Amino acid sequence: MHFCTRCGGPVSLRVPAGDSNLRHVCDVCGNIHYLNPKVVVGTLSEWEGKVMLCRRGIEPRYGLWTLPAGFMEMGETTAQGALRETYEEACARPELIDLFTLINVTHISQIHMLYRARLLTPDFAAGEESLEVRLFDEAEIPWEQIAFRSMAATLRCYFEDRARGQFQFHPIDLPPPEAG
Amino acid sequence: MHFCTRCGGPVSLRVPAGDSNLRHVCDVCGNIHYLNPKVVVGTLSEWEGKVMLCRRGIEPRYGLWTLPAGFMEMGETTAQGALRETYEEACARPELIDLFTLINVTHISQIHMLYRARLLTPDFAAGEESLEVRLFDEAEIPWEQIAFRSMAATLRCYFEDRARGQFQFHPIDLPPPEAG
Ligand SMILES: [Zn+2]
Ligand SMILES: [Zn+2]
Repeated sequence: MHFCTRCGGPVSLRVPAGDSNLRHVCDVCGNIHYLNPKVVVGTLSEWEGKVMLCRRGIEPRYGLWTLPAGFMEMGETTAQGALRETYEEACARPELIDLFTLINVTHISQIHMLYRARLLTPDFAAGEESLEVRLFDEAEIPWEQIAFRSMAATLRCYFEDRARGQFQFHPIDLPPPEAG
Repeated sequence: MHFCTRCGGPVSLRVPAGDSNLRHVCDVCGNIHYLNPKVVVGTLSEWEGKVMLCRRGIEPRYGLWTLPAGFMEMGETTAQGALRETYEEACARPELIDLFTLINVTHISQIHMLYRARLLTPDFAAGEESLEVRLFDEAEIPWEQIAFRSMAATLRCYFEDRARGQFQFHPIDLPPPEAG
């Protein structure tokens, strides 16, 4: 950022008094602009043993598969956000079961939270940001074409828990991606 | 906010094309400024059956008691943030046990995450934003002087789980505060 949201003056990166981090501080009015991690919420929805994935119709990762998820909005709960994103991307209205994964994606300062959910009917369709929405058996999951590591991790946890016969909550810290 | 962070031009509240929410959109360059919920992280630390609380030395809720917690920073995990805040406010370095509560505080667009933790030694002291740090038995908890409902809810879950002999993860949605 280059300009102050309060007065429009130029900002500089400085450590404010009593702080220990660099912040964007207004050169004119002194307003301090804090940046904070963002929360992404979504669902892993099941129907008759299959899980619902969306093929992305937008960048990044155009054409790859993901669980429906997106940035949480002001004034909603994590659960409400997860359901909203599922409707926007997959035109589906599942019933939430439980918060399933909470994934720190630290190198981009995001927290991804995926809920386990069940479709009550097999009604879904590609939303504006999706090319296609499909149900996948475990054996059909396109592991090499999953858009994000957090979504692949959530799918792995799901199939492992299901094989064990017990679902649990999984807090996960993703390491930085490998260089290259 | 009044001015664009990219060009310093004035912003207006508008619904951008393809969006369904009001956003701060720059009248000059079209930059869209998204606001998102913020994450607060902290700890409930135990030592010999007691829990550690901090008496707030800053507004809001100056003089009331709380668990050490604060806004998550860019580039850290939720666990790292919880430990950092505990050190800043209580000069303590507990060992984290588990994520214990995840509380949607929707009317202020915050998510509070509290970790259960254990002190390895009874070393703590008031940090810059605290007046006092103390260990409390369950019977001593100043329930009428707890600064935030999310912290009271976390303490209640803790003592209930402890009485039952089993700790579990608690996702909670706080209702809006009562008027008045
Ligand atoms: Zn300014
Ligand atoms: Zn602009």
